[in-house]
Amino acid sequence: MNKNYIIPNEWSIIEDGFDAENVEASESLFSIGNGSMGQRANFEEDYSGKTFQGSYIGGIYYPDKTRVGWWKNGYPEYFAKVLNAPNWIGIQIKINETNVDLNTCEISNFKRELNMKEGWLSRSFHAVLPTGEEIEVFTKRFISVTYNEVGAIEYAVKALNFSGEITFAPYLDAGIENEDANYDEFFWETLKIVDGENAGCILSKTLKTEFHVGTAMDVSFAVNGKAIETSQETTIAEKTLTYTYNLTIAEGDTITIYKYGSYVSSLNYKNEELISVALNNVSKAKEIGFKALLNTQIEAWATIWKTADIVIEGDIKAQQGIRFNIFQLNQTYMGTDARLNIGPKGFTGEKYGGSTYWDTEAYCIPFYMATKDASVAKNLLLYRYNQLGKAIENAEKLGFKNGAALYPMVTMNGEECHNEWEITFEEIHRNGAMVYGIYNYVNYTQDFEYVVKYGLEVIIAVARFWHQRANYSAAKNQYVILGVTGPNEYENNINNNFYTNYLAKWCIEYAVDCLNKVKHNYADDFDRILAKTNLSIDETYQWMKVSDDMYFPFNEEKQLYLQQDGFLDKELIPVDELPTSERPINQKWSWDRILRSCYIKQADVLQGMFFFENKFSKEELERHFDFYEPLTVHESSLSPCVHSILAASIDRMPKAYEQYVRTSRLDLDDYNHEVHEGCHITSMAGTWMSIVQGFGGMRVWEDGILNFNPQIPAEWKSYSFTINFRGNILKVYKSQSECKFFNESATEIKLFVNDKKISIAPNKLVTV
Amino acid sequence: MNKNYIIPNEWSIIEDGFDAENVEASESLFSIGNGSMGQRANFEEDYSGKTFQGSYIGGIYYPDKTRVGWWKNGYPEYFAKVLNAPNWIGIQIKINETNVDLNTCEISNFKRELNMKEGWLSRSFHAVLPTGEEIEVFTKRFISVTYNEVGAIEYAVKALNFSGEITFAPYLDAGIENEDANYDEFFWETLKIVDGENAGCILSKTLKTEFHVGTAMDVSFAVNGKAIETSQETTIAEKTLTYTYNLTIAEGDTITIYKYGSYVSSLNYKNEELISVALNNVSKAKEIGFKALLNTQIEAWATIWKTADIVIEGDIKAQQGIRFNIFQLNQTYMGTDARLNIGPKGFTGEKYGGSTYWDTEAYCIPFYMATKDASVAKNLLLYRYNQLGKAIENAEKLGFKNGAALYPMVTMNGEECHNEWEITFEEIHRNGAMVYGIYNYVNYTQDFEYVVKYGLEVIIAVARFWHQRANYSAAKNQYVILGVTGPNEYENNINNNFYTNYLAKWCIEYAVDCLNKVKHNYADDFDRILAKTNLSIDETYQWMKVSDDMYFPFNEEKQLYLQQDGFLDKELIPVDELPTSERPINQKWSWDRILRSCYIKQADVLQGMFFFENKFSKEELERHFDFYEPLTVHESSLSPCVHSILAASIDRMPKAYEQYVRTSRLDLDDYNHEVHEGCHITSMAGTWMSIVQGFGGMRVWEDGILNFNPQIPAEWKSYSFTINFRGNILKVYKSQSECKFFNESATEIKLFVNDKKISIAPNKLVTV
Repeated sequence: MNKNYIIPNEWSIIEDGFDAENVEASESLFSIGNGSMGQRANFEEDYSGKTFQGSYIGGIYYPDKTRVGWWKNGYPEYFAKVLNAPNWIGIQIKINETNVDLNTCEISNFKRELNMKEGWLSRSFHAVLPTGEEIEVFTKRFISVTYNEVGAIEYAVKALNFSGEITFAPYLDAGIENEDANYDEFFWETLKIVDGENAGCILSKTLKTEFHVGTAMDVSFAVNGKAIETSQETTIAEKTLTYTYNLTIAEGDTITIYKYGSYVSSLNYKNEELISVALNNVSKAKEIGFKALLNTQIEAWATIWKTADIVIEGDIKAQQGIRFNIFQLNQTYMGTDARLNIGPKGFTGEKYGGSTYWDTEAYCIPFYMATKDASVAKNLLLYRYNQLGKAIENAEKLGFKNGAALYPMVTMNGEECHNEWEITFEEIHRNGAMVYGIYNYVNYTQDFEYVVKYGLEVIIAVARFWHQRANYSAAKNQYVILGVTGPNEYENNINNNFYTNYLAKWCIEYAVDCLNKVKHNYADDFDRILAKTNLSIDETYQWMKVSDDMYFPFNEEKQLYLQQDGFLDKELIPVDELPTSERPINQKWSWDRILRSCYIKQADVLQGMFFFENKFSKEELERHFDFYEPLTVHESSLSPCVHSILAASIDRMPKAYEQYVRTSRLDLDDYNHEVHEGCHITSMAGTWMSIVQGFGGMRVWEDGILNFNPQIPAEWKSYSFTINFRGNILKVYKSQSECKFFNESATEIKLFVNDKKISIAPNKLVTV
Repeated sequence: MNKNYIIPNEWSIIEDGFDAENVEASESLFSIGNGSMGQRANFEEDYSGKTFQGSYIGGIYYPDKTRVGWWKNGYPEYFAKVLNAPNWIGIQIKINETNVDLNTCEISNFKRELNMKEGWLSRSFHAVLPTGEEIEVFTKRFISVTYNEVGAIEYAVKALNFSGEITFAPYLDAGIENEDANYDEFFWETLKIVDGENAGCILSKTLKTEFHVGTAMDVSFAVNGKAIETSQETTIAEKTLTYTYNLTIAEGDTITIYKYGSYVSSLNYKNEELISVALNNVSKAKEIGFKALLNTQIEAWATIWKTADIVIEGDIKAQQGIRFNIFQLNQTYMGTDARLNIGPKGFTGEKYGGSTYWDTEAYCIPFYMATKDASVAKNLLLYRYNQLGKAIENAEKLGFKNGAALYPMVTMNGEECHNEWEITFEEIHRNGAMVYGIYNYVNYTQDFEYVVKYGLEVIIAVARFWHQRANYSAAKNQYVILGVTGPNEYENNINNNFYTNYLAKWCIEYAVDCLNKVKHNYADDFDRILAKTNLSIDETYQWMKVSDDMYFPFNEEKQLYLQQDGFLDKELIPVDELPTSERPINQKWSWDRILRSCYIKQADVLQGMFFFENKFSKEELERHFDFYEPLTVHESSLSPCVHSILAASIDRMPKAYEQYVRTSRLDLDDYNHEVHEGCHITSMAGTWMSIVQGFGGMRVWEDGILNFNPQIPAEWKSYSFTINFRGNILKVYKSQSECKFFNESATEIKLFVNDKKISIAPNKLVTV
């Protein structure tokens, strides 16, 4: 691990003591958000040290001009950047004309807390100004879950050793830049700045995409807890609106500023309404008041935790880690808007751009599906359904026809953004995840209606892609898929990647299964879908030639599916035997050396076996795990969780726990030396899976039966988790000696625990 | 073909009539140079239409910051750009204050000629100015071969219908930019501007590389052919020096300006000498005078042609084409400076950057070796010898050890510049070409001393690379080379590319052969080289394990070497069956589709068979030609010549001729729609090879015996070529009925013609 300064605590992320070296890391770790918008934990007051400013609005992006070395036909013109949005949190503070700046003051008693149970961020410190004044500062800030366009700040300053003038200058700043800009261009234009009594608004728009955003603030003051009336001195500059308040403060007094902020955008309103809606939002927030707003926030988070919490006894760092993962996932995506998705950095940074990767289908859907109402997972599926047209266009650009779809590697609006050929054009396995996401959802919810109404169109388009993308090899007398990159991105342009071929075959088979089910049970829909997709039964026979005769690289001697053709030509030296000085290989080795090595960045054959574990015998799982695990370097955040789950599945609990530790505190302990860039949001869903699917052994296959196989790491006393299964709230508790199931809900749940069928009535506890 | 405006002529490239659409293409085609410097055929006077300005100095480059999408470990920091250098040709002309500009005047009788026999460029036209004045202009310009830092311009203006004022404003302009700049940065700094009596100089330096360049001019005037004295009005701006001469011209009079220019650089002089050397150069040139300078130019080119010309009877376009190729090769590289090399665009454009590719060893050495003194080819080899240290460093960056060398894909000073991983790191076959170049040179010249003094160190370092780069495959029980790109760049990251494996095996074998020869015949050198390279005999045994047990992909049924593992899994549809609307595939298809297709960009297996034709039976050549030729799209300029030569070798003259036509007028007829970017210089050597090695069947293998097998395309009456073979000037003539050999030189030549040994005494003609 790289950093170790976060104080272990069951419900909070805590930083104790100020260290300028940790500012950017903490800005990531203490990020706050509500699924619609979010921000890094930047200071409200001026800070002249190293900082990475970021505030983001879901769905608002900029199509930055693609940067490549040598342009290749088919590259997208742009890469959608997550956009740093106008700053509404800023409050410049001056004491007798001297700026409060943690980089120039002498700081003590610095404490920062992100309270995950209640959803707020606080900070307190004692500062001695260069000019000698001593102050105590206490701040609290949150982004409201209930009023999802609003955030609130309480910022209190106590004069310890002086009486004099204190200046508060809350501002809105639309002159912001992106850290991650390909050509250092400016992405925003300021359209209008409106001032008013203690409230104001800036209307800006993004260049090219023309998203319009209203950013508003409203401020009020209290002295020693009593509200006071005061009015501002207004400064309007080209891109900023600043209100200056010069107040007199007496020694021992505390003056508090309350600042309410709001983002509203043209995603939800007409452009001409934005200013008034934003101003109305902040005015309403001020009316409700900071404390009442905070109470709604605490209630909202209590509701979220009710069906999402995981309790671990006997390991406080593991407890903190898993709650941090669950908290960040909820801050990133709440599931209420089918236009939004789960960016790899959420609202904690800009890296990777775009909002949507195959991470959503492969990792995130299980989490949201099991911790929220089924409508949330459905919204994630609808996101892809709504982008089907773009996926078909994308496939057409690459020469596919007849409604075949290739979903993008990275996207905001359905268009491909990624521009490295080996990923963009070749990492096509992502297309299989789109269908797997539907399969997973239908298994869990038994909502086959989704397939009938929406999913089947996606499934057909993807099956068409695989049919066209495979080709018949005369040499093998089978169908092959050439020139792909599998989930293991440390191999490029390989032939017959097991995972890809397996998903391709399965997608076609699942498509045919679904078509048959719809034909027999929803005859009208069947005709409608065939007409809409221009599909004939004869075409499906063509698909099935490919699925029936798909080639898989297999070594008879080792009885092993190979990751791709020729894998056994490599030098097979276990990761353990690599000198630590050469790891991580992606920082130490040139790309060609990585490519021709046997080292696996993230689960690949094993990812396939994880998805379809019920299709492989335990012996097969063991054999493949024992071959591939020692060659896997886990240099993707998405890898350890899959290995953890499979290890638990084949009763290798020490290995399962080792991999769990790696995934659960990845950001808190900064394993990858990069937390300053933001948190690894999507892999956090993998951490959740490691417990629920790994240790807990939860599975739901096509038959819809809920299975558990609870095991517990030797290091823990107990753990428990809660899931929402078809509207039933089910709690699972496992200690070193006991295993209990509790059904909080209205209907009876039938489930299998270690292959034994049990039944739990509402509000009953079953011990197994 | 795309353009068809060049007038066929045996010795000249001629453009008749002005068409603004052709200006940029003509700027490329009419380029002039002398191996040390060169320039596009830009107009001297102002031109407000579309133009691509370019003047280049051999060896002067700028390390432009690399542009990539996603940075990969091992990428070079910079890409060396061929640098547009300060403009010395400019002469602004005004008639009664109106600018002469072909874009605004009415132009007739426009003619441009590049006289390849004599090495000059001329232009004449009749212009009616917007203000009604009519003038006739005649210009002639050349870059001196004899005085290789000097160029000269004669620019004559005749007043046809007026008397009045004519202003000549010759200038130097150091405020030039590169068309090809990754981040639109400025590459030059102006240090000093010196003016004098009709002469002046600008001293500039390149940023980062700090090359200093002095650019000088000296001007004089004549009225109706009689020299006049006049003095300038001087204007010194930030980056320009302009001399203005206002003269009176009478109707019917002709006023001529002579402008002499010079580049001198810190490659050859101390920085502080540059201004005086440059001024001295132009002053000396003026003293010699335009006509006398031109006469030395004509003589110099006559000498070049003496040992390089190819005469074709019965096909004037073929005649013009081959001379254009030979002329441009000589303009690009004269072989007198071992620091210079042959850039893919020579001095005709900026594209591709760098100066040195494997084109030099694979294509250009045969041409320079057979048309010039042996010292020229030797200089090309020494260039690589001198960069051996950088090649070893380059290999170290990629994890190789113990003095293994990987020569760069593109370079100026020996450092790698290219930055696409599939090329930079994987197109390693180039390393074999370094050794093949030596082998080729030794066979042709029998100068084994070169190996002893220099070459063996390169050969050892390359053998070490191949030994380390191959790995033992337990599955195959042989050595394999994984993750490469072969000469066919339409395949990336493939395993066991036949060409690469063949060269790797051969390089080791040749290294061992050379070591044995040196051991037995040059014992002292042997010890010296072993000590210098820290080589033990035991290490060579390790190498030989790899060469003895190298794996080659081979299909038993078809008795065919496969281009790489798995090639026969592709859909094998001949190029002929592709709709023309889908070609060239590199413009119509996305990269992944190209990669997984069977289509071959340029000779790959066949390139290997061409290099080592004596190791394969005619049946093998036929079989592989018949398999690979129909799959080859020849979308590299370097491809058709190899197919042409092999086709001739297996008696397929119609195919040989078809491929010859494609290579020989590639630029003149602009087959690839890109001549405006510059000419394809290195492939011009391939055109020469198509005649001499293809139709002429010239071969020299290890035994040093000169072989011919002259054939003639049905379309030609006759052709003849001249070669310099170990100091003997040999002429070969072939008509439809006759075949003759003539030895101009002092010693007897023994050779084989169609396997029959003949002998030619000096100044004798032999008919076979």
